[in-house]
Amino acid sequence: MSPERPGREELGRALEEMVGRENVLTEEVDLLPYSADHFLRGLQHYFPRFKFLPDAVVTPSSTAQVSRILRFASLHRIPVIPRGAGTSLAGQLIPVEGGIVMDLRKMNRIEPRVEDRMVVVEPGATYAELNRELERKGYFFPPEPGSAMACTIGGMVSTNASGSGAVKYGATRNYVLSLEVVLADGEVVRLGRKVTKSASGYSLKDLFVGSEGTLGVITEVTLRVEPYPPLRKTALAIFPSLEDAFRSALEILGRGITPASLELMDELCLLALNMSGFSLPEGKGALMLRSDGRYEEAVEREMGEMEEVCRGRGGQLVGVEDESLGRRLWEAREKISASLTKLLPSPETPRLVFQSSVDVGLPLSRMLEYVSRIKALMEEKGIMGVCFGHVGDGNVHIGSTFVPESPEQVERIRSFQEEAIRLALSLGGTLTAEHGVGLWKAPYLEEEHGPALELMRSLKRLLDPQGIMNPGKMALDGIPRVAFMERWWEEG
Amino acid sequence: MSPERPGREELGRALEEMVGRENVLTEEVDLLPYSADHFLRGLQHYFPRFKFLPDAVVTPSSTAQVSRILRFASLHRIPVIPRGAGTSLAGQLIPVEGGIVMDLRKMNRIEPRVEDRMVVVEPGATYAELNRELERKGYFFPPEPGSAMACTIGGMVSTNASGSGAVKYGATRNYVLSLEVVLADGEVVRLGRKVTKSASGYSLKDLFVGSEGTLGVITEVTLRVEPYPPLRKTALAIFPSLEDAFRSALEILGRGITPASLELMDELCLLALNMSGFSLPEGKGALMLRSDGRYEEAVEREMGEMEEVCRGRGGQLVGVEDESLGRRLWEAREKISASLTKLLPSPETPRLVFQSSVDVGLPLSRMLEYVSRIKALMEEKGIMGVCFGHVGDGNVHIGSTFVPESPEQVERIRSFQEEAIRLALSLGGTLTAEHGVGLWKAPYLEEEHGPALELMRSLKRLLDPQGIMNPGKMALDGIPRVAFMERWWEEG
Repeated sequence: MSPERPGREELGRALEEMVGRENVLTEEVDLLPYSADHFLRGLQHYFPRFKFLPDAVVTPSSTAQVSRILRFASLHRIPVIPRGAGTSLAGQLIPVEGGIVMDLRKMNRIEPRVEDRMVVVEPGATYAELNRELERKGYFFPPEPGSAMACTIGGMVSTNASGSGAVKYGATRNYVLSLEVVLADGEVVRLGRKVTKSASGYSLKDLFVGSEGTLGVITEVTLRVEPYPPLRKTALAIFPSLEDAFRSALEILGRGITPASLELMDELCLLALNMSGFSLPEGKGALMLRSDGRYEEAVEREMGEMEEVCRGRGGQLVGVEDESLGRRLWEAREKISASLTKLLPSPETPRLVFQSSVDVGLPLSRMLEYVSRIKALMEEKGIMGVCFGHVGDGNVHIGSTFVPESPEQVERIRSFQEEAIRLALSLGGTLTAEHGVGLWKAPYLEEEHGPALELMRSLKRLLDPQGIMNPGKMALDGIPRVAFMERWWEEG
Repeated sequence: MSPERPGREELGRALEEMVGRENVLTEEVDLLPYSADHFLRGLQHYFPRFKFLPDAVVTPSSTAQVSRILRFASLHRIPVIPRGAGTSLAGQLIPVEGGIVMDLRKMNRIEPRVEDRMVVVEPGATYAELNRELERKGYFFPPEPGSAMACTIGGMVSTNASGSGAVKYGATRNYVLSLEVVLADGEVVRLGRKVTKSASGYSLKDLFVGSEGTLGVITEVTLRVEPYPPLRKTALAIFPSLEDAFRSALEILGRGITPASLELMDELCLLALNMSGFSLPEGKGALMLRSDGRYEEAVEREMGEMEEVCRGRGGQLVGVEDESLGRRLWEAREKISASLTKLLPSPETPRLVFQSSVDVGLPLSRMLEYVSRIKALMEEKGIMGVCFGHVGDGNVHIGSTFVPESPEQVERIRSFQEEAIRLALSLGGTLTAEHGVGLWKAPYLEEEHGPALELMRSLKRLLDPQGIMNPGKMALDGIPRVAFMERWWEEG
């Protein structure tokens, strides 16, 4: 970047003047945790040279401070990486060009306005805190990503996060009414209004939702909230084949039912559940069903209809009459990836589930074909991994497990994941339904978007002409768009 | 605009070469219907000089033709106004600088993909046709704007249209998965993918939703569809005061109920309903309630809860046990504005409901205050008009009736509407919840968006550097932002 970029010490002093000494880190030992996100952290264990240290970490506590920092960064062309809980799964937070990591967790005010069916919240508040506060008032913010226990609202907005409830409730975008953002040059702008419906002007807020910190820093979020459904029922249907599970899910949707969750799981997922202490009937595929609502009869009847469909395809039902079992199954489902590591051949080897799991989205009618072909590919390549998904919204996750002992092993996984992404694109899918693009999916973005990627790049240049906002992500700037894992192995 | 702009004849010949003679109009008598939208049509009757003729109307039947026309228009800097059914209520379709009106109604293909819970549709297909086709398959596209009988899908996307179902189902934006658009220079770009969930790249489709034809021409829309709820119940609750109606609505929402519709009506609306042949009990305010769903018990119980709330505030219920009455009430509600004209003092005078009704959006908790102050303002200014609204999403409509016999009368209405908009903004509202900005709300856009308007303008310049796409709308370009009605009176 620019030659005027100050050294680490000078940068540290300048930031300290803006936010106070206690809110700036410049020592290597303190910077290290900020060199990776959840995607990279496990891998760093094996490739210790593969780390990108920031020059400084700064923790602002107000929009005015964020604005001052960005004005300064802009003047000196210093990269800025906004950061929440660091749970991102595609390398969104890796400071590939150094610079300032802006840790927003001190900006965590939550102001519920349930009389308006909304909440005003700062980016550093966590999803869990927010929902604790909302549920006390009878409301909730539904997207429920896999990282629900830790992730922040700013991170969720920046990646349009979602999870198993999206089939009924939609992703984060559906809830964002208004944003306060600080642009790259420090200007503070309000996007959208704090109302539930508007047709006024271009929807700039929607440009920032899912922009992964590449356009500016989100400093306040106004979210629509939903009444919390007082009734929730969970059941697990276990099938003789994965195809039966799939076809049951499609039949449920085809009947016009939109359940609160409709989760597909393969045989390995079931094994992982059993390793968490369940003794489930044998099966090759399963559906986790959730129904929620305000009226008991409706929840019962919806669940009853879904059970009927599942039984019709040989499904065995677990948890229907036992609410606490249902809850425990749901908790165990969230830990499937972690349990899976225990299945690796030699338990004493340091082991790893590759966190950057594939999370493609497909048209519903192509999902079965996709999963069958992926299973065959895994077989062919000798890759152990799980296939699960939010069937209702076409989202398939593939988590592949490996011990990164040799370049060949890494390349095997890399090329498999690449094929998995390209197969989804060739079936009309999207390369990421939930996790976002970050670094590691950037090489495939053009295959999905074609000429629209050039349009994204011109928007990026318009809003961030110096390219200081989270450089290297989403294939927007000059960073060589090499496959991330290739580079990583070469440099590791 | 540019001096190279061809004359009408030359333009006509060029267009005929692109789309065939039968798809081009250049005679004044044929152009006249395209000089106005629904907003302006009634007014032209009184102000015959106030018409903006286009130079030509062209009716393309493919994306390739749209692209050729835009390349040509771009080369010669000719304004292009994309147009559907012409039902817009804020002057979005008025060719203020002449140019080419692009009538998209021949591009009306509908391709349901209900197995994917989506439909691929061309912009000229109407909402009514689309839903007829979808309902046969058990699905629907819910936004249901007031112009549902006539409006096109392209128009709905371009204004983020919605109506009385938005409280439960949301506006058009919530359903747009992917768009094919032709940019100002003729380039064809696909925005988003035909999948129900994605976190891949900037959401450019959301920039085009609500952009009122100022960024390009939408040539294909992929919409998510909802299962059609087999059960629908309607009831009308009539209250001793408007405040009782309001407070009942807020209590219904506060209980955590999200009905299919929750429509507030004032005394004049009730009068208008009675003029459509009903004999309703006397009252000063009313709520139209709709509940829908898949399970009878849930619909019954939801309706029961709402009735209980209404009775608790002195509401008298009509239509609860009579489904056909419910349907007829619903139909009559759609015609309230039309019925209202009959209430004007002298029935033999040519008369007019000012179609550009105010349609502000407010935080729920400020609606009652807003409506009370508006009622007082109407009283003070001697303005007759209705106040009704989609309470569930904070949307208030004010339709004011007048006979435009003198400049004073016009100015009285204009200044009242301006006050109504400014009051909404001062209470944290938006200047348009449904109808969009177009010409007549453009003067107020900056008051709502502040510096974000400048950002909108730079996006406009980026995507349409010559400013040919629907010039003069949304305060995006060099058109003097005079209050539309002032100018109109002066020139009329």
